[in-house]
Amino acid sequence: MPSPDESVHPTATGLAKETVDRHQKDEDLVLWSGWFCPFNQRIWMALEERKIAYQYHEVNPYKKEKHFLNLNPLGLVPTLEIKSTNGQSKALYESDVLVEYLEDLYPESNEHPSIFPKDTYEKSWVRLNVQHITKKIIPAYFKLQQFQDPSDQDSAREELYKGLRTLTERVKGPYFAGEQFTAVDLSIAPFVRRFYNLVEFRGLDESKVGDQWLSYREKLMDRESLKNTSSENKYYTEILERYLKNEAQSQVAKATRGGQSLP
Amino acid sequence: MPSPDESVHPTATGLAKETVDRHQKDEDLVLWSGWFCPFNQRIWMALEERKIAYQYHEVNPYKKEKHFLNLNPLGLVPTLEIKSTNGQSKALYESDVLVEYLEDLYPESNEHPSIFPKDTYEKSWVRLNVQHITKKIIPAYFKLQQFQDPSDQDSAREELYKGLRTLTERVKGPYFAGEQFTAVDLSIAPFVRRFYNLVEFRGLDESKVGDQWLSYREKLMDRESLKNTSSENKYYTEILERYLKNEAQSQVAKATRGGQSLP
Repeated sequence: MPSPDESVHPTATGLAKETVDRHQKDEDLVLWSGWFCPFNQRIWMALEERKIAYQYHEVNPYKKEKHFLNLNPLGLVPTLEIKSTNGQSKALYESDVLVEYLEDLYPESNEHPSIFPKDTYEKSWVRLNVQHITKKIIPAYFKLQQFQDPSDQDSAREELYKGLRTLTERVKGPYFAGEQFTAVDLSIAPFVRRFYNLVEFRGLDESKVGDQWLSYREKLMDRESLKNTSSENKYYTEILERYLKNEAQSQVAKATRGGQSLP
Repeated sequence: MPSPDESVHPTATGLAKETVDRHQKDEDLVLWSGWFCPFNQRIWMALEERKIAYQYHEVNPYKKEKHFLNLNPLGLVPTLEIKSTNGQSKALYESDVLVEYLEDLYPESNEHPSIFPKDTYEKSWVRLNVQHITKKIIPAYFKLQQFQDPSDQDSAREELYKGLRTLTERVKGPYFAGEQFTAVDLSIAPFVRRFYNLVEFRGLDESKVGDQWLSYREKLMDRESLKNTSSENKYYTEILERYLKNEAQSQVAKATRGGQSLP
């Protein structure tokens, strides 16, 4: 009998499925993707936001293809394959690195709008707040999801509120950096999209973050690139239940359980 | 009676002291610095490598000035103050963010050599390996330093060897990316500079990483920017002893002790 993790739904559903279908033909950039992974959704959103041509390739996390493991020996999604004219492929991974790579590969133009402000200081301020999300908000999110002890959950929930409040104080509105949708919005949105599970199973109450958070999160949830890379709720819940019961076996789940920094 | 942490040596010594003395006059960029901090040394090295004008300002970690806390409410070094013509200051922090900021502010030129490769892919590969250092090598370094139980130390030591071996396999030589000194070299060098404490007190044996590591680490240790920002060994040891005895109270020390991701 397969372990529960092997019964993961194999493909994207809903609007995400339609986006996958539109990105099947050969391209020089191939996104080796996991439809369910919030880190993966960041770079998927970046490709959509920036109107960059790419081919979508779903990775079965429990039957990883040899070619994929050659591209990324760590076996992590997202991995971006970069095909070159000589038939050789190169690869890059880590969502933050990929976002920067796409900026260097396709600098700001009418055709490919940037997800960083033009101003040098503001651009760095965006990068700094992506790090705030990575270091303060995401670890609290995973702890709240996985921790089983109610008092551990209470402190993880407070840690999450605190991280979100700090971010909210810096939101210019409607998006983080103002009218422009930037890497900060892109880095938090896939997690906000999954908050409904924490509301249902972990007592998350986003109104406690404050009114400004509620209007910001609404703008995020309304963004086409988020909607078009999101699957149906029931399939996320199916996977997230393993985290909620602390049964998940992903590298992130193991790190959270063991008190390690996230991979 | 002051707690042990308050007796920290207040200023840089040795060659670092000479560099501090050369950077006392007013400049638009002010490095709010801790002479002892390896993360801080990264951006200090970047300023030196890239020949960028800066003013050096030592932060007393136990008596933080109001102006410093206004610049960075987290109170962390390194913090870069950016003065503007209207007399207002802005600030940025996080060593990786600062390195990128300096690249944007002073793009590659004869006067200001870059610490990133020109090629888009190679540049991202450097960023990816900076993340490898941050996620795999540095946490193992701090665990080996702080953990008191011998078997915990054994596994931290193996984790450190493993992270260093992965990096070593990717070193083109003499530096990570070849002849050019890049952000990867800069990110690992300040920690390698402090390894002697782990050799003395934690049984670190760098020959176990492999011969290629030994020649790479020698190149790093020989780099002028590392030597010119390094203080005398005895003062590092004085501070590192608190980590070795697990008595340090820095944010990194508390995070390592509590199994949290590093701040």
